[in-house]
Amino acid sequence: MIEHNAALTRDLSAAFLNEIDQIIGLSNLKRGDAVANLDYGVTPANFGADAVAFPSSPHEVASIIKTAVAHGISVVPQGGRTGLVGGGVSVPGQIVVSTARLNRIVKIYPDERVAVVEAGVTLQALQAAASEHCLEPGIDLPSRGSATIGGMVSTNAGGISAFRCGVMRHRVLGLEVVLPDGSIYSDLTRVVKNAAGYDLKHLFIGAEGTLGIVTRVAIKLEPVPAATATALFGLPSVEAALDATGLGLTVRYGHMRAAEAIWNSFFSLTAGEHLWSAADYAPDYPVNLIMSLGGGDEEQLQMELGRIYEELYETYPNVSAVVATSKAQEAELWRLREDTDLIYRRYPAAPSFDVSVPLSQIGEYVARCVPELRSIDPLLDPYLFGHIADGNLHIVLNAAGTALTPAKIAAIESVLYRDLTQSGGSFSAEHGIGSKRIHALRETANPVKFALMTQIKAAIDGGYTLNPGKVTG
Amino acid sequence: MIEHNAALTRDLSAAFLNEIDQIIGLSNLKRGDAVANLDYGVTPANFGADAVAFPSSPHEVASIIKTAVAHGISVVPQGGRTGLVGGGVSVPGQIVVSTARLNRIVKIYPDERVAVVEAGVTLQALQAAASEHCLEPGIDLPSRGSATIGGMVSTNAGGISAFRCGVMRHRVLGLEVVLPDGSIYSDLTRVVKNAAGYDLKHLFIGAEGTLGIVTRVAIKLEPVPAATATALFGLPSVEAALDATGLGLTVRYGHMRAAEAIWNSFFSLTAGEHLWSAADYAPDYPVNLIMSLGGGDEEQLQMELGRIYEELYETYPNVSAVVATSKAQEAELWRLREDTDLIYRRYPAAPSFDVSVPLSQIGEYVARCVPELRSIDPLLDPYLFGHIADGNLHIVLNAAGTALTPAKIAAIESVLYRDLTQSGGSFSAEHGIGSKRIHALRETANPVKFALMTQIKAAIDGGYTLNPGKVTG
Repeated sequence: MIEHNAALTRDLSAAFLNEIDQIIGLSNLKRGDAVANLDYGVTPANFGADAVAFPSSPHEVASIIKTAVAHGISVVPQGGRTGLVGGGVSVPGQIVVSTARLNRIVKIYPDERVAVVEAGVTLQALQAAASEHCLEPGIDLPSRGSATIGGMVSTNAGGISAFRCGVMRHRVLGLEVVLPDGSIYSDLTRVVKNAAGYDLKHLFIGAEGTLGIVTRVAIKLEPVPAATATALFGLPSVEAALDATGLGLTVRYGHMRAAEAIWNSFFSLTAGEHLWSAADYAPDYPVNLIMSLGGGDEEQLQMELGRIYEELYETYPNVSAVVATSKAQEAELWRLREDTDLIYRRYPAAPSFDVSVPLSQIGEYVARCVPELRSIDPLLDPYLFGHIADGNLHIVLNAAGTALTPAKIAAIESVLYRDLTQSGGSFSAEHGIGSKRIHALRETANPVKFALMTQIKAAIDGGYTLNPGKVTG
Repeated sequence: MIEHNAALTRDLSAAFLNEIDQIIGLSNLKRGDAVANLDYGVTPANFGADAVAFPSSPHEVASIIKTAVAHGISVVPQGGRTGLVGGGVSVPGQIVVSTARLNRIVKIYPDERVAVVEAGVTLQALQAAASEHCLEPGIDLPSRGSATIGGMVSTNAGGISAFRCGVMRHRVLGLEVVLPDGSIYSDLTRVVKNAAGYDLKHLFIGAEGTLGIVTRVAIKLEPVPAATATALFGLPSVEAALDATGLGLTVRYGHMRAAEAIWNSFFSLTAGEHLWSAADYAPDYPVNLIMSLGGGDEEQLQMELGRIYEELYETYPNVSAVVATSKAQEAELWRLREDTDLIYRRYPAAPSFDVSVPLSQIGEYVARCVPELRSIDPLLDPYLFGHIADGNLHIVLNAAGTALTPAKIAAIESVLYRDLTQSGGSFSAEHGIGSKRIHALRETANPVKFALMTQIKAAIDGGYTLNPGKVTG
């Protein structure tokens, strides 16, 4: 509830801070300059509250929450602070609980293909630990170095493998969560089949810390393939990209690991900045597709990519393909997709959108939205890229965050979100709701669903102790 | 709450039945003999209530629920009536709501690899409809002919593909559910990435109809491989079976579709009854493993199975393998695993258990349980089989349901369930809680989890209208 925030623009009392000190030790409670020296992540608003606590155990988290409740203070959980929708922003009078010291890899069970980790472990740290056993988390995203597993659980992170391995929700086997009353929900199963009652871990996954603070996670791992191969396809249309994806899903040798579409405007930007080019690859294909395969043998995988090219060529004679022949070339191709910083350097705080579109409607959706955006502002030519195998498109405007009036932003949202929920998509695919998307959620959600969400929030956190002003408001 | 049932041993009033007639039409409300002529499924207790309503739309379901609430009648939802833990049993004074007429395949979206179906569609019907597009639901189980998609959602069904494609929860993209107040929760997304608020569909998945009645499901489909190949391995130990499974997960060509372990006692039964034998395949291996691969070319897949045999042979020189060379042989091998009816014909209503054991503990678990069961009753020699790639074991006793005293059953449960939750497993893998497993849930669940479950039930169905006496009690 937005009202809560207004009531909280006061200083934290010395008594409260003393109690927190007692729980975690003076050096683990940062204030003032010590906070200013921390990395605030995506936005300085993450440190609106000037008290940041660093507990090192679920029991310390529980004690902090109980103390906060006793003092009427609300708590904002933070992981890697890489969230894009303000799920971690805080205001004066709140206390931030960081999971940075909950950073132990508790155990890897190689024979079970499972890892148990604390919430503050970064994706990259888990990837490194798992790779020692030829395993990987089955989820990957560009912010792997800072994104934490707890944060990824709380936002139900997606990434490039979701079409095959699911989103974070599908990777989590077990969860430990500290609830708003300080009790500890412990359900650290390491098995995929568990029908022992309501599976309440799914309430906390994707709840952005509004129902509990995730402290420990059991996560499913996948075997790392011995080899990978990557190609870039230049394609005339979304339809062609979807056809290519379909062929990738049914390769005879190995399996498809990624299918990332890059529309022309973004491709021109990254290819131009990185001076990327290849013989016979025109720089102006409407859609470019990076496809990676994984399997036992690199040469065989490259042959599969060649076969996909040949099949595409039958239907789309102007298709091009570049197959990477070294790890360096593979990395170069991936940079064309992943270097989104280039946009933000050009257009600081450029508004970005993150939608899921049912696959059969992607072509139509893009064809409708681009001219409609242009009719709002003739200079708008959005950067478009995304996970075409699962329908998740990222749309970043070619405009600084300050350059657009709230009315224009509202008009843009109404273009991008129109009919999306009704037609089976989602206006928020993998970034969540946070504080920025609540209005859109209210406007588009099934009213019965939204009412039930607020009812659940009230049942579990009636005092709005945890992350007030996020998700349900 | 068990108390509810006692209060319900009365006849339904004529006024109530008239109102139900008005909603669905006289011919769609069965009573008395008309109910006796229906197939009661796994247990006659499913028709303890002698009124069975057959609505044909979510709105009719909603109207029935509202009418039931107004009359203080509780509602028991039923799908295929194949549940094994009494999730569908009913008592006089209740009304059963069957999904049998909600049996439309609403639409298959081949390009999206998604189906939208009504809850009463059987798994087999969906498999048939999907196969026309070379797709499959990614979930399969022996009761495919009667199990309904709604029932599979409500019990979070598992089956043989769960290690690869997840359980039902991981297959469901969208859900429509009629809530206990008669409102309709509609969240029929067809995309895997949806971070638009709490993902409340997961409350209804696996809730066994205690929080709402599922009426429509959007479910993810997978490409059907062009070919399959199946082998039976005779192995000296669980460890060898897990090694074989690990090799299956990393085949170079194709992918593993199933890995089903059959311990000796069950194997002797099915092989004996079906007069199955093969040259050089000893009938007394401690563990037998059926492995299926899928991919583009049958011969290549059979070669992969041969390679697995060779690798196993290095470590376990007494391993045997039979590779099916025809569809008929493939079916014969599968019958050795799937013909569980043989047990129940020999031991009517034999008590069965369905546990998930973390993979690294399966060997130890079986080695501990079998002698401990024998020390309860020297005649006990349980039939053991299951989904070894996900740790789900089925344990069926070689004793008729009536042959064991409640005290013995309790002793058996305490052997099979001991430490299972604490060590990361589950005492109920894929069959659910129903009415039969509530005591075990109470005894083994994390108290915070169980308390939260009852709190959620109270928040959504405070009047205990839907399926009282199940899951939370």
